Amino acid sequence: MLRTVNCNELTKKDVDKQVTLCGWVNKVRNLGSLVFIDLRDTYGMTQINIDPTIFEKTPLHMEDCVQVKGVVKLKDVPNPHLKTGEIEVVCTELKVFAHSQTTPFTIDDDTNASEDTRLKYRYLDLRRPLMQKYLKTRHKILKVVRNYLEKLDFNEICTPTLVKSTPEGARDYLVPSRIYKGQFYALPQSPQIYKQLLMISGFDKYYQIALCYRDEDQRADRQPEFVQIDCEMSFVHRDDVLKVIEGMLKKVFKEILNVKLPKFKLVKYTDAINKYGTDKPDLRFGMEILDLTKYFKDSSFEAYKGKTVRGIIVKNYASNVSRKMMDLDNELVKKNKLYGVSHIKVENNDLTGGVSKFITEESKAKIIENLHLESNDLLILGADKNKELLSTNLGLLRLKYGDLLGLRHKDVFAPCFVVDWPLFEKKEDGSYECLSNPFTRPRDEDLKLLETKPEKIFSYSYDTVLNGVELSSGALRIYDGHVQEKVFNILGFSKEDIERKFGFFIDSFNYGTPPMGGFGLGLERLCMILNETDNVRDVVAFPKNLNAYCPMAKCPSKVDTEAVDILGLQIKDEYK
Amino acid sequence: MLRTVNCNELTKKDVDKQVTLCGWVNKVRNLGSLVFIDLRDTYGMTQINIDPTIFEKTPLHMEDCVQVKGVVKLKDVPNPHLKTGEIEVVCTELKVFAHSQTTPFTIDDDTNASEDTRLKYRYLDLRRPLMQKYLKTRHKILKVVRNYLEKLDFNEICTPTLVKSTPEGARDYLVPSRIYKGQFYALPQSPQIYKQLLMISGFDKYYQIALCYRDEDQRADRQPEFVQIDCEMSFVHRDDVLKVIEGMLKKVFKEILNVKLPKFKLVKYTDAINKYGTDKPDLRFGMEILDLTKYFKDSSFEAYKGKTVRGIIVKNYASNVSRKMMDLDNELVKKNKLYGVSHIKVENNDLTGGVSKFITEESKAKIIENLHLESNDLLILGADKNKELLSTNLGLLRLKYGDLLGLRHKDVFAPCFVVDWPLFEKKEDGSYECLSNPFTRPRDEDLKLLETKPEKIFSYSYDTVLNGVELSSGALRIYDGHVQEKVFNILGFSKEDIERKFGFFIDSFNYGTPPMGGFGLGLERLCMILNETDNVRDVVAFPKNLNAYCPMAKCPSKVDTEAVDILGLQIKDEYK
Repeated sequence: MLRTVNCNELTKKDVDKQVTLCGWVNKVRNLGSLVFIDLRDTYGMTQINIDPTIFEKTPLHMEDCVQVKGVVKLKDVPNPHLKTGEIEVVCTELKVFAHSQTTPFTIDDDTNASEDTRLKYRYLDLRRPLMQKYLKTRHKILKVVRNYLEKLDFNEICTPTLVKSTPEGARDYLVPSRIYKGQFYALPQSPQIYKQLLMISGFDKYYQIALCYRDEDQRADRQPEFVQIDCEMSFVHRDDVLKVIEGMLKKVFKEILNVKLPKFKLVKYTDAINKYGTDKPDLRFGMEILDLTKYFKDSSFEAYKGKTVRGIIVKNYASNVSRKMMDLDNELVKKNKLYGVSHIKVENNDLTGGVSKFITEESKAKIIENLHLESNDLLILGADKNKELLSTNLGLLRLKYGDLLGLRHKDVFAPCFVVDWPLFEKKEDGSYECLSNPFTRPRDEDLKLLETKPEKIFSYSYDTVLNGVELSSGALRIYDGHVQEKVFNILGFSKEDIERKFGFFIDSFNYGTPPMGGFGLGLERLCMILNETDNVRDVVAFPKNLNAYCPMAKCPSKVDTEAVDILGLQIKDEYK
Repeated sequence: MLRTVNCNELTKKDVDKQVTLCGWVNKVRNLGSLVFIDLRDTYGMTQINIDPTIFEKTPLHMEDCVQVKGVVKLKDVPNPHLKTGEIEVVCTELKVFAHSQTTPFTIDDDTNASEDTRLKYRYLDLRRPLMQKYLKTRHKILKVVRNYLEKLDFNEICTPTLVKSTPEGARDYLVPSRIYKGQFYALPQSPQIYKQLLMISGFDKYYQIALCYRDEDQRADRQPEFVQIDCEMSFVHRDDVLKVIEGMLKKVFKEILNVKLPKFKLVKYTDAINKYGTDKPDLRFGMEILDLTKYFKDSSFEAYKGKTVRGIIVKNYASNVSRKMMDLDNELVKKNKLYGVSHIKVENNDLTGGVSKFITEESKAKIIENLHLESNDLLILGADKNKELLSTNLGLLRLKYGDLLGLRHKDVFAPCFVVDWPLFEKKEDGSYECLSNPFTRPRDEDLKLLETKPEKIFSYSYDTVLNGVELSSGALRIYDGHVQEKVFNILGFSKEDIERKFGFFIDSFNYGTPPMGGFGLGLERLCMILNETDNVRDVVAFPKNLNAYCPMAKCPSKVDTEAVDILGLQIKDEYK
């Protein structure tokens, strides 16, 4: 090695040692009679004391990459903030590997460079200790996950990334074939079919840190390519899979954050929607949505008649809520197609404001008693015939007031599994869509509904949700070819569609498919939580921007005509 | 779990236990009064004893996927070949998860199914224990490699797979951009530039199990997508990198094959070419190519005049070599542009046959003495002005006779590093090509030749070669921007070319690039060696065939016109 020690190693027990260090000049302090530089590598920082005569011959600037030979000496004034703060290295020999121009932004955690500049000079952005920490955490997560799954005897198997395009779900990235001109591979959106085939092959337990791709219009938390921790197991009950997920995440949080996650709660999909207004409930706090319909049965209030009435209680907050806040609440729900909400305050054992005047005295008393309301509590109500719409809106207000009350602590982790999802959603035109993927197994007791009321079928689906964020989704899979065909039929696929898109997969059902289940867990999302960042680009070494463009490599880019030609393609529409 | 034990677990200490097993019916033996089935899972095999009354209600066929409940009993006649051979499970309850049709080929290591059939029904092919072993070995290699690199503090970092197309080296797979119509991403041929950028970012030690792609006409040992164990380190000497490679491979061979690899030899490129006629020398045996020019200095033989004469000695083989073999040798070398070779036998302390008549008696004696020739040795000679051509051909014969003499033992492993490669090759038209990649660092002592004689420059390149197979290649990299530009110039890139193709990379040289080096090691190649197969498709779960086509998924395939349309593309030439 060109060094004998890293920049984080030396302490006072190394005094008088001859050492060689390599790294980047983080700072230069030229005091005239003395020159100090902070030498930085990925491990830490060491102060170098350079004689001005040496420095004159080899002047240094920030971000120069250098080798320093010297002797370890005690510092007059130790720096208690640095591991190496007790010593400095008195330079005897200095070599510059490569000088640096002035960098377009300072290599410091606290940067005001625009994200585009940071992406353009990503190799400099990644020098910032925070970015190094982000990517090292990502590495650590992978390490913990792998060790965990290896211990459970999962086999890591690579599935192909040049696959068949199936126009289900999101848009595929296509890869033109040169040999079969006019034909295409697709980059996989997930290894779903292949991992199921591996179970059919008998591999029993599979995992892969799988590259997945989606050509979607970008959202802040999506990248064109992303990584999925992907598992599948044969001969399992649902809870066997949940145990693997729970154990894995507990391990990860323990090793990375030293946090002991609590036992994962089981929340039924319907309960999640009813109580939290979302399939991704934030369980760090209560404030559950309550059904209050019965209290309005006898009300004279026309607007609530024949509707479901639901509400949330914001404890001890009535005096804080202003006219403006109420207006904002109404704006929020109106955007989401709810007519409005009503804010009722609890004062002197009475309900005041909002729609309270339409509530009978008797009902008021019951509400106060049954809901254990106390003075200064705020009750936010809404009514609609569409229960889900109503709950969704109250769910949004629940989160808003959860934030306002400081109930969504960033150090509290409340994981749960959302289970028992409907298999299909019936659209207004009478057609069916699946809520997860078409391979999801209906509950045994609901199989009979396949012929009659598919929208009533629940499935063996499960999502892992942490603090309102979906971390993984998975399900037990169909292993009966007839059920699989039936599901495809309900989804409106013709026999030809099925044959063309899933022919080989349907065939595989003819040769003894085992019961199986698995999950996919988004690495970037997990990594964002563990790094406490909400920018997915922070946890990807060389990300694309929101237009799926890389400002550094300037890609995508034009290619030689010949390269397009050889694929049997022609460009007919060009981005200007 | 739907089982309590796996199919490899039960022994006589489990007798009388109630157990549940899951798996596939490997064999049915219906003796009328008794039915036996062999139940197989990925772990092993267990014999099930089924009462004919149960079997009648639930008849089983090969490859049915079933659950068996029963009681463990001692077998009358134990099967010593099976771990579970002492016991059988007397079935009390039988459940079929999914019946199997007759499979297109028997699920057995010994198959005569064509490779296309095996690829079409890959999910059945993978049920064969041999295929399971192949992929499990692949998994084990990855595990050992990762543990090794993690212990050395390498950071696993994902580099992008939607990258900029640079028309160097092999052909890129292109991915059309929907947002920037008419523009393309490329799938990476290697993470080369990105890993160098990570070093510039200060990450110090990087590794990745990297997916790489090449749109080449397929060879037997290549797939369109392949996996590279990819590493890079900063502040290293060449030997620091070699130590990592050697340590890693030693670990892998020890853990997988329980083989202790010998110390890796260092072979200079020029020596490899001269002595073995190849840059991938098989060091399992000697039979080095010898320079015999001096013995022909005084010879009257016109054909050898002014040429280099070289040869190999095949010990104790003269009596085995027939006219026909000699003809075949000559055919072989003629295909490779050598005029021919001459076979000389050692008999009674004399040289006979071939060109021996043109050798003076004095030279004959010296040859016999200096080369320690013994009776029945065979000396194969050739002459040419082009030394490399001559050695290459003798190298091929060396391998051929090495095989004939059984010197290329499959249980012997002779690893080496081939080092000191020329940086450039000068083509006949006077242009230069690089032997590895354009980022390879010239030896310090040769830097001065950049301006004058680039073809004389040697580089800090190194290949790992095992038994004649290239396992990895790597190099120290250029860290001086001027040297990098000079190299690009010598390769004939214009300023515009460089800017367009490598602009951002050249820019990065402005900010303190560290000295670095690394390597890429082909996972599939390594896996083939450790699995003793020469078919790359054996070590890939779902491979493409030689036409880059997947007979199972039928991909590549046509896609909807709209999907092409949305990319701004048009198909002008279609595969029929």
